[in-house]
Amino acid sequence: MSDAVTSGKGLWTGSYYNEGHGGHDGLFDKLKEECGVFGVFGHPDAASLSYYGLHALQHRGQESAGICTADADNFHYFRGMGLVKEVFDQSNLPTLVGTSAIAHVRYSTAGESKLANAQPLVFKYREGDLAVATNGNLVNAGEIRQQLEKQGSIFQTTSDTEVVAHLIARSKHDDIVDAVKDALQQVIGAYAFLILTKDKLIAALDPNGLRPFAMGKLGDAYLFASESCAFDIVGGTYMRDLLPGELLVLDRNGLTEDRFTESQTRATCAMEYIYFARPDSDIDAINVHSARKRMGKRLASEAFVDADLVTGVPDSSTSAAIGFAEQTGIPYELGLIKNRYTGRTFIQPSQELREQGVKMKLSAVRKVVEGKRVVMIDDSIVRGTTSLRIVNLLREAGATEVHVRISSPPFQNPCFYGIDTPSRKDLIAAQKTIEEIRQAINADSLYFLTQEGLIDSIGRKDGVENGGFCTGCFDNRYVTYVNDSENAVGCGC
Amino acid sequence: MSDAVTSGKGLWTGSYYNEGHGGHDGLFDKLKEECGVFGVFGHPDAASLSYYGLHALQHRGQESAGICTADADNFHYFRGMGLVKEVFDQSNLPTLVGTSAIAHVRYSTAGESKLANAQPLVFKYREGDLAVATNGNLVNAGEIRQQLEKQGSIFQTTSDTEVVAHLIARSKHDDIVDAVKDALQQVIGAYAFLILTKDKLIAALDPNGLRPFAMGKLGDAYLFASESCAFDIVGGTYMRDLLPGELLVLDRNGLTEDRFTESQTRATCAMEYIYFARPDSDIDAINVHSARKRMGKRLASEAFVDADLVTGVPDSSTSAAIGFAEQTGIPYELGLIKNRYTGRTFIQPSQELREQGVKMKLSAVRKVVEGKRVVMIDDSIVRGTTSLRIVNLLREAGATEVHVRISSPPFQNPCFYGIDTPSRKDLIAAQKTIEEIRQAINADSLYFLTQEGLIDSIGRKDGVENGGFCTGCFDNRYVTYVNDSENAVGCGC
Amino acid sequence: MSDAVTSGKGLWTGSYYNEGHGGHDGLFDKLKEECGVFGVFGHPDAASLSYYGLHALQHRGQESAGICTADADNFHYFRGMGLVKEVFDQSNLPTLVGTSAIAHVRYSTAGESKLANAQPLVFKYREGDLAVATNGNLVNAGEIRQQLEKQGSIFQTTSDTEVVAHLIARSKHDDIVDAVKDALQQVIGAYAFLILTKDKLIAALDPNGLRPFAMGKLGDAYLFASESCAFDIVGGTYMRDLLPGELLVLDRNGLTEDRFTESQTRATCAMEYIYFARPDSDIDAINVHSARKRMGKRLASEAFVDADLVTGVPDSSTSAAIGFAEQTGIPYELGLIKNRYTGRTFIQPSQELREQGVKMKLSAVRKVVEGKRVVMIDDSIVRGTTSLRIVNLLREAGATEVHVRISSPPFQNPCFYGIDTPSRKDLIAAQKTIEEIRQAINADSLYFLTQEGLIDSIGRKDGVENGGFCTGCFDNRYVTYVNDSENAVGCGC
Amino acid sequence: MSDAVTSGKGLWTGSYYNEGHGGHDGLFDKLKEECGVFGVFGHPDAASLSYYGLHALQHRGQESAGICTADADNFHYFRGMGLVKEVFDQSNLPTLVGTSAIAHVRYSTAGESKLANAQPLVFKYREGDLAVATNGNLVNAGEIRQQLEKQGSIFQTTSDTEVVAHLIARSKHDDIVDAVKDALQQVIGAYAFLILTKDKLIAALDPNGLRPFAMGKLGDAYLFASESCAFDIVGGTYMRDLLPGELLVLDRNGLTEDRFTESQTRATCAMEYIYFARPDSDIDAINVHSARKRMGKRLASEAFVDADLVTGVPDSSTSAAIGFAEQTGIPYELGLIKNRYTGRTFIQPSQELREQGVKMKLSAVRKVVEGKRVVMIDDSIVRGTTSLRIVNLLREAGATEVHVRISSPPFQNPCFYGIDTPSRKDLIAAQKTIEEIRQAINADSLYFLTQEGLIDSIGRKDGVENGGFCTGCFDNRYVTYVNDSENAVGCGC
Repeated sequence: MSDAVTSGKGLWTGSYYNEGHGGHDGLFDKLKEECGVFGVFGHPDAASLSYYGLHALQHRGQESAGICTADADNFHYFRGMGLVKEVFDQSNLPTLVGTSAIAHVRYSTAGESKLANAQPLVFKYREGDLAVATNGNLVNAGEIRQQLEKQGSIFQTTSDTEVVAHLIARSKHDDIVDAVKDALQQVIGAYAFLILTKDKLIAALDPNGLRPFAMGKLGDAYLFASESCAFDIVGGTYMRDLLPGELLVLDRNGLTEDRFTESQTRATCAMEYIYFARPDSDIDAINVHSARKRMGKRLASEAFVDADLVTGVPDSSTSAAIGFAEQTGIPYELGLIKNRYTGRTFIQPSQELREQGVKMKLSAVRKVVEGKRVVMIDDSIVRGTTSLRIVNLLREAGATEVHVRISSPPFQNPCFYGIDTPSRKDLIAAQKTIEEIRQAINADSLYFLTQEGLIDSIGRKDGVENGGFCTGCFDNRYVTYVNDSENAVGCGC
Repeated sequence: MSDAVTSGKGLWTGSYYNEGHGGHDGLFDKLKEECGVFGVFGHPDAASLSYYGLHALQHRGQESAGICTADADNFHYFRGMGLVKEVFDQSNLPTLVGTSAIAHVRYSTAGESKLANAQPLVFKYREGDLAVATNGNLVNAGEIRQQLEKQGSIFQTTSDTEVVAHLIARSKHDDIVDAVKDALQQVIGAYAFLILTKDKLIAALDPNGLRPFAMGKLGDAYLFASESCAFDIVGGTYMRDLLPGELLVLDRNGLTEDRFTESQTRATCAMEYIYFARPDSDIDAINVHSARKRMGKRLASEAFVDADLVTGVPDSSTSAAIGFAEQTGIPYELGLIKNRYTGRTFIQPSQELREQGVKMKLSAVRKVVEGKRVVMIDDSIVRGTTSLRIVNLLREAGATEVHVRISSPPFQNPCFYGIDTPSRKDLIAAQKTIEEIRQAINADSLYFLTQEGLIDSIGRKDGVENGGFCTGCFDNRYVTYVNDSENAVGCGC
Repeated sequence: MSDAVTSGKGLWTGSYYNEGHGGHDGLFDKLKEECGVFGVFGHPDAASLSYYGLHALQHRGQESAGICTADADNFHYFRGMGLVKEVFDQSNLPTLVGTSAIAHVRYSTAGESKLANAQPLVFKYREGDLAVATNGNLVNAGEIRQQLEKQGSIFQTTSDTEVVAHLIARSKHDDIVDAVKDALQQVIGAYAFLILTKDKLIAALDPNGLRPFAMGKLGDAYLFASESCAFDIVGGTYMRDLLPGELLVLDRNGLTEDRFTESQTRATCAMEYIYFARPDSDIDAINVHSARKRMGKRLASEAFVDADLVTGVPDSSTSAAIGFAEQTGIPYELGLIKNRYTGRTFIQPSQELREQGVKMKLSAVRKVVEGKRVVMIDDSIVRGTTSLRIVNLLREAGATEVHVRISSPPFQNPCFYGIDTPSRKDLIAAQKTIEEIRQAINADSLYFLTQEGLIDSIGRKDGVENGGFCTGCFDNRYVTYVNDSENAVGCGC
Repeated sequence: MSDAVTSGKGLWTGSYYNEGHGGHDGLFDKLKEECGVFGVFGHPDAASLSYYGLHALQHRGQESAGICTADADNFHYFRGMGLVKEVFDQSNLPTLVGTSAIAHVRYSTAGESKLANAQPLVFKYREGDLAVATNGNLVNAGEIRQQLEKQGSIFQTTSDTEVVAHLIARSKHDDIVDAVKDALQQVIGAYAFLILTKDKLIAALDPNGLRPFAMGKLGDAYLFASESCAFDIVGGTYMRDLLPGELLVLDRNGLTEDRFTESQTRATCAMEYIYFARPDSDIDAINVHSARKRMGKRLASEAFVDADLVTGVPDSSTSAAIGFAEQTGIPYELGLIKNRYTGRTFIQPSQELREQGVKMKLSAVRKVVEGKRVVMIDDSIVRGTTSLRIVNLLREAGATEVHVRISSPPFQNPCFYGIDTPSRKDLIAAQKTIEEIRQAINADSLYFLTQEGLIDSIGRKDGVENGGFCTGCFDNRYVTYVNDSENAVGCGC
């Protein structure tokens, strides 16, 4: 390993990856997904479309799922713990009649008390029924909540969404659009909001556009989704992403484009491109797979290493590995294979069996890596334990050298905008130098993509600060007020 | 059949009965049970005791069950749709740690949207955590709700309980006891309330004592329950019923006996004695089985008929039938047998099979009734269809005469205090004379117990109006303001 | 307690009872039910009728259920662990097409390996498909099995039914009726057999008629069932019981009445009348409830005791208690109440809670028994622990005296004919004198019905040995060869 | 499309693929997987190892799973319908004690009647307990079965495995090893057998070695598996594949290498390399991923086409696509993305929704393929409908040209050795010319790998007929007697 590589960037460690974008089993440390939202206006099969849409967004949350529809007279909703395919069946989906719908998948910890938190949240207030689904996190939710309680409000969930519902209900404006604007003007953070009444669907994106939020069409119907892949599954067409601070209203008059605040600097979450989003999604008209492939190519330029094969940690690093291979001419191989059948109910091996080598999720392919110098591409390192495990898998399978290339800068800071991150003391890149990390994960060399390389790979917006991306987790620069003394929280959904 | 009998009382028909006190299958028309509450203060196994207590109260509600416990620091709760034994298991019950608890079983219609209504409701408000469980119905909940919404409140359930929670949270009093008093002084109706905070358990009964509500002890711990049978199952001892308008507070100082209002006329629901409560429960120190047996004896005095055997419609009319037999010397027989294994998932017979005679719930025993004159005791008639069916069962099994004796007066008016009754047009006694009912149910004679006989049988409180009972469903006299133009509602829980 | 009573009969103890005829929870010791069979020939809804029929027979077996139907071409079958309502649902019942069916409920211990034992067993042999369902036990099954294995047979179950299937398949006769006769002539024991082929239904009863087995009609269709109550639930009519040694064949030619052996002494199991069968069933044209009521009256004649009330241990002793009350004029009361909602998934109270008095299944009603002298009627005593518990329940509820009357003689010997009994060392009546039992169960007096009284109460067949009943469990006289050195086994189904 | 390509090979169409190797949803036509077996001898955690081993073999069968263990005294087994993780849980896995085990996953159609077919089959015969698990199909099972039935055998399953069990039980040899040899000498076909007794584990492979069957070690314990990936998951080491006709015996004396017949021509199933096996498995010391990559390279040599990108139909064609890209220098892209969360309970879209474009399993990535000439690699074409659908997906996403390259020859004949194939009339390659297929699937060009190319890519064994592979499905040459007039059957397990 050359000094040049480890001296490049500060300190970082801890690899992570997840199960087909959204694993359940917790065998490896990883970043937690936030949530996903989906909306329909003006389609007779609003619930079915939502069902398929949520399915495409399943990687953004596996712990609960919910759909709320509206017909002319009533709301109909069903929420449950589990995967979309577990929550919905022929007994409940057909009851969700109506031509508009909002829907949600949520990542969270287990426990019934959390079912109360499953979204969409549905409320009654003075103007009638209201349903709300969110992806994101408010940094001032705690303060607002305290104020509301002082005024006699009661809360049934711990979600930021309920806070916003209270602000809407207490607004001096009777009109729902005005009331929503009023509410959003009081909150700070990262969010994609879908709000449903019996005759309106409202979509709003935070003033920095931190979270992804796309609009699409299916015939005359309008669709909204956290990721554009949810449009593909229902045969819809991606139109555009919402703009920072934008508020769109759909009702019998069609689409009204409005704003609840002046737009501020666009700062899309870079981790969506690096890790969270599906490779077939486009965010801001940039395809995620293509962005990742460019990261792999850039990695090859920044830190070439001669080797016999390139392999990616499946699935999220596959695209970057293909890019690295293409750039260098080193063959791309399936050196690591993920077991497709892992999942929630899989019985955990005992400590004894684990030590004997029971490997539930990932295997290194001996015939492929034996006697070979391997470049292993991963998208990030969180705690470092998983990286060590994977490097050792490759070595036990006979790899003679393992060179680790990470398609993002060292992950050193908590996220305040909806990604559930460990505290700084558990982030290896916040605690160790790169050389120390390299030793900790037993790699022959280690390199992290530069922040400049990252932004260029995704697609720098010229003249926009930081190229138009939030990279707070890498560089500790946040685009809103944050209270860093607090523990960062995950998704406030 | 003698004229004397059918000319006695106005109009009524429609028998009902239920499944072991609490049937699921809806094969027969019947009155719906209201709900049941259970509370514990000062016992290390508060959740387990609640679990067994709810089990004993299962006949009061089979659609959802919930327990909320408090330890020094936190609330722990779990609620679900289904029977107590289905909702709770080894995965959730042990997580409900703490020495105080409130618990609830709820009767309701199906549908997930109703899980939100499962109690105890758990809220956060400015003073911390609050859990509430209720049995009963508020007659002015709608008006209060409207006012609260005008002030910006949002509602997540349709239950009266959430209304009271809002009133508590918006009270000018910070002290929870004062706030609860404040809230209860604003509501009108029939209710037994249990309210839990981290260090207090509050129990309150409506000013007329319409709903049953008992206090017991188990060692040093205090228990509360809708019926005293819930104390027996946990080995506890019945102490007394709460007084109308009483509010009891348990905290580290032990029991404080208080009131939130001046007591008004005691008017215990007579239907609890006639039909709802378990025969082994005592309400106001009167055993339910014994009261029912006295009703049967009184029926025999009021309307003797010579016959070969007496049989009761199981299970709720068994006690009255035993009384009738004892008084007259006519043998008591098992002429009707209920299938013990009916239940929710039982596949319904098709119309063709039903016409061929598939009888899921009840059989007449041919060898017992063949060639015999039968006295059939039932506790009430709601729509009349079930009575007709049972009379015909007996005739098909060879009974030569069927004399129906009902251990309560004709059921003619809706209940506003928590019992889910059909509208007047579906109450046969509100539509027909007794002679017409007799014909409609194909009986040889029919007699309803007089209201005087009923009150005497339960136990008339001398000098108290109507002997101390609410008989609104029989005589249309309600003890509070009611808005009879509205449809009566069921349990407001 | 008078000496006259305890000196009457030998030795016995151990009460038992069960849950609505068929409890799951094992909180009390009790005799295990055997199995139940049901058959249909010539009805387009054969599977649905079987489903309801099994439901009525549910008390005879709760561990597995199965139905096999035949149409002109194929067998269709489904079997599963659990209650009838749990095993069958809209996904499997409609697949069971055909106009003939045999069905089975089985009592057994848990464990998947036992699913293989669920009946009907379905085989292919040289003549095609064959399904068999049995209630009973063969005393020479072990010997035959060994012989078959020597000849190269393989066995997939431990049931006697598979033994008979092998005998049929290996018979020198190709005709199924001849082959069945051939097979049954080789086996010894107690059994009711239903055998289905694509065009025939065969029913056969053992040569002593030990097990109950009734034939009924529904329109032109023929029905068979272990108890006649299964005909009532489907609207069918009881015709007669099968005769000992009889073999009935149904095919396109209608009913053929045949025999496979000369009839031997009729010896119907007395325990069916005492405990197992439902009170609304008729066995050999004798109604079970009426027989039990006569046992109670006879008990009153044999061992009157002055008291304030009579109560039965629910549910199986209710009829006898009514008879005792009627004979003596002592009031019959609900002194003991069974919780209707107990069942398999009910969480067991911990030892601590049990000691504190958590009572899951049965409560004594304080207001009824307090200060009273109680006659408690039970149907039998097996180990004695349950009797002690119930007597103590009554005493703790304030009973001043508890006089126990048992409606059968002391249970002292194992059953070899299908009833799962403990070994002799666990049968208290095989180990203690009646006076010792009285002390062990803490009763003021104890009396067991005489065998003569029992047989008279059921209905003595004049000129037939032992009145036509098997009472081996009381008097150690068995009607076939038995190998008493072996442990008695339960149901061989 | 050039003529050269379509004129190359006969006729074929119909692509297929499956869900992570083993999809449930049947949205696309595909070849059915056969079964998988796993065995352990001499390890205290035999059941746990089997559980993980089955997990790795899950792609070979998703309909049922079973494990049978043996300790010194008893067999313990559990089988159920569903995925390994659904069948086994903490309630049943720990009951499977013992140091040896055999286990099975089975592909099959749904229906309870099929639970009887779940393996391992467990029998009792004259020498005691016997459990058998198989992967494969016997071509003369029907004839033997008929003969056995004539001799009085009864059958409870439709599996070939039960036939072999009968042959063992009826063998003149008492010794189990001799009896197994005797039985296997009578059967013809393709099979990997695992046979368990209380003290022995026997493994046997058919005389042509048609099915894969590997032996491994974990410490001192021996392992067997249909694929070597099952050794990796438990930390075991691959030793070697069984030889054709070999019979291995493990008992207290360790491993005995034996044969039941003279070896015949090795003829390993080529489809295992092309499609069935996991890429990380080695079969006969040849890695599957590497073989597939070579097929892709060979395809590129045989039928190069200039294009902008190469994409594979996930997941089974990924390796070949990488090979094609590497050989040609055309970039490899994720042009098609599979939804990871599809599965059994996924609600099917209605016809209307399907027509509107709801795509459950696969999406084309517009940003990747738009305006591009695409080479699409798939492993085979069965009916052709799926290929058409995928080509159209790519065109709708903007691909200007779609060139299909198939990494195997046209699939024209049924398999008699365990792979469930449609009848010839449904195999498009048996009905159409390649040019017709090209048109049918709407491709710009179409090419199938030559058989020579296929065998070279996997690894031709010099001097062995057909290079050592069975390619009957391509060239109609079968290595044993087959009865082609019969419908080919699937797995006989």
